[in-house]
Amino acid sequence: MSSWLSIPENSDFSVQNIPFGVGRDAEGRVRLYTRIGNQVADLKIMYELAFFDEIEFPIHVLEADTLNAFIALGKKVTNAVRLRLQQCFTKNFMGSETLAEYYLTDASNVKMLLPIQIGDYTDFYSSREHAKNVGIMFRDPTNALLPNWLHLPVGYHGRSSSIVVSGTPLRRPKGQVLPPDVGNNPVFSESKRIDFELEMAFVIGKNTNLGDTIDINDAENYIFGMALFNDWSARDIQQWEYVPLGPFLGKNFGSTLSPWIVTMEALEPFRTQGPTQEPLPLPYLQHEGAKSYDICLKVEIQPEGQLPTTLCNSNFKYMYWNMVQQLTHHTVNGCNVRVGDLMASGTISGPTPDSYGSMLELAWKGTKPVQLNDGSERRFINDGDTVRMTAWCQNETFRIGFGECEGLILPSK
Amino acid sequence: MSSWLSIPENSDFSVQNIPFGVGRDAEGRVRLYTRIGNQVADLKIMYELAFFDEIEFPIHVLEADTLNAFIALGKKVTNAVRLRLQQCFTKNFMGSETLAEYYLTDASNVKMLLPIQIGDYTDFYSSREHAKNVGIMFRDPTNALLPNWLHLPVGYHGRSSSIVVSGTPLRRPKGQVLPPDVGNNPVFSESKRIDFELEMAFVIGKNTNLGDTIDINDAENYIFGMALFNDWSARDIQQWEYVPLGPFLGKNFGSTLSPWIVTMEALEPFRTQGPTQEPLPLPYLQHEGAKSYDICLKVEIQPEGQLPTTLCNSNFKYMYWNMVQQLTHHTVNGCNVRVGDLMASGTISGPTPDSYGSMLELAWKGTKPVQLNDGSERRFINDGDTVRMTAWCQNETFRIGFGECEGLILPSK
Repeated sequence: MSSWLSIPENSDFSVQNIPFGVGRDAEGRVRLYTRIGNQVADLKIMYELAFFDEIEFPIHVLEADTLNAFIALGKKVTNAVRLRLQQCFTKNFMGSETLAEYYLTDASNVKMLLPIQIGDYTDFYSSREHAKNVGIMFRDPTNALLPNWLHLPVGYHGRSSSIVVSGTPLRRPKGQVLPPDVGNNPVFSESKRIDFELEMAFVIGKNTNLGDTIDINDAENYIFGMALFNDWSARDIQQWEYVPLGPFLGKNFGSTLSPWIVTMEALEPFRTQGPTQEPLPLPYLQHEGAKSYDICLKVEIQPEGQLPTTLCNSNFKYMYWNMVQQLTHHTVNGCNVRVGDLMASGTISGPTPDSYGSMLELAWKGTKPVQLNDGSERRFINDGDTVRMTAWCQNETFRIGFGECEGLILPSK
Repeated sequence: MSSWLSIPENSDFSVQNIPFGVGRDAEGRVRLYTRIGNQVADLKIMYELAFFDEIEFPIHVLEADTLNAFIALGKKVTNAVRLRLQQCFTKNFMGSETLAEYYLTDASNVKMLLPIQIGDYTDFYSSREHAKNVGIMFRDPTNALLPNWLHLPVGYHGRSSSIVVSGTPLRRPKGQVLPPDVGNNPVFSESKRIDFELEMAFVIGKNTNLGDTIDINDAENYIFGMALFNDWSARDIQQWEYVPLGPFLGKNFGSTLSPWIVTMEALEPFRTQGPTQEPLPLPYLQHEGAKSYDICLKVEIQPEGQLPTTLCNSNFKYMYWNMVQQLTHHTVNGCNVRVGDLMASGTISGPTPDSYGSMLELAWKGTKPVQLNDGSERRFINDGDTVRMTAWCQNETFRIGFGECEGLILPSK
């Protein structure tokens, strides 16, 4: 598939991608967009230009400030819109090339917003390498995985209100931390151990009713698409607070989501088998076919005024528990899901030290500082550091990517 | 304050109360209501009848399906509406008695709905007696409280989607549990340990921005009101899953909220000092004045076709950590809150065994079954059991209450 548009080689936004997002243009209008190469297309204007006339749906979903109403139309409609866009960008279909000036603009003219109104946000903990690394560092190296880990995708609820779109700076949080050698007397301090967590997240595309369970072989029908996610963590706050009910203020000061939701249909060519699961999960978590995806992941750090340094290269296919297992497990007790709910993978670490998805692991709890290109070193994230995550799928003929998920850490107020 | 209405003695809904809720009338119209005695008043009709003419706000907030837009008007407006309603019900003000037939109806004619669109739901763990009981049962009796417990109000994020209004039956959840004596090989089963947790919850009345912290002496301005909350728990599912990231499927199969939000202004006469806090909390958690409330709490269980048995009598004033401490702690790291967020107290257990707020504690982990009036006994909740919570404040001259928070457990599907 080639295009009449000029799409840079290695663009994340090839004609095979066609993700969905929400942006505000220079006049302050908020619209749904797709992105193609370095340009974005205003879907509401395309609707008015009759490009979607053969697809039945109301125009108001395209001038919303989130994708939720669009997603709620269902995959039959949203896939049809995506395929029509692909058709329009591939050849001059219905005057798409001629009319381009009306609906296409340079991506830099549109500020991307948080694409989803997130109802509930769940974070899983599904990378075996990450769970093992944490277990070695904080518990028992010879028995790093907890007893339940190989039997279920461990997850917990997180905070929706503080999820921000890529590019939103975050303040270094303050809170209670327990300095070493003071017994159990915490102090109030800014966090000294800000970390990133390289994650991907999926967006729920279809509601269930309370009491219903999603069958694992039907679970894909409930997943609209994916994005990159940085589950920022304040390790010192987390360490003191998290027993026995889990992470709270160590996480909820902010999480960053990339602006473009890449559909599962775009990711279809990159399906792959996940790791062998041994012991075999209980029957409700067993599925047919390949449910993992080969998605390359990269994390860079960029101190203010410096060049970036690559911190890690990982891959989504390393995940031990896949998305359909996560979603089925999440609803096995009857818990309902809603369009726009966000479910994140947990830190995606690979098998080698250069594929670990957090500073905690890369610098091994501060014992092996990471060297940056500017000569400095990091145990955790400093004020003024930008952390940038990217993700892409590549085969012999094309590439689709997720754009950037980046955030800058500002000093505490 | 007496009323021209006939209000039953000991009604929860005295003229001193005037709570807010959302209901659907027999014609299917969804409106905001208040309740007075056994009647409810349609606030939209009262608006049309000019009762609120001196208060500036748009009528659409009164024909919404949640209280959120009304609450977002701010306390200046919502307090003015409440005081006007009180005035109307106290004497025939602006024809309130004469016009009563237009806006008042028997409470049984209106089906109450979930009053809030809950953005984020947080559950705390703030009763010292409850935390101690759990610690004795599951950890170390001589060291029951974990090291952080006396220093901060431990909390975690819960699931918003599965919070239902009082009267909504819930299915017994299924999931992974670890039977005794099978090593670490879980089985898939319906939960055999369904429990209630007696809690109260408060509703956020004012947004903050990400990065901001609510000062403890300003925190009351962010709390709109309170309701009763049953944090249903599946103890066997919870036990297997909760390490290290906290409760998940053991909780998110359903939680029950009472339909009437009682304002903080109504509760003002029932302020009281909470327990002495020793050690003194860090300065950001220290406040001036009484921040606890004397609210009597009762839990009953009613098997199908039987009379109810009282399981416990407790009081909200037993809470070690109060609401302003919880809210300040929640935002100390910059986490933002939004109108409609719900924050629950955690199980409210008192000092004596008949004041414990969960079956886990009342039947002491199943070792001391509770006798019911019908001759049966309970270690946990059976199919067909209804759990009913009530809460009220009483002084020498009046009573205000919360109505009922009840739920029936149905068999697994």
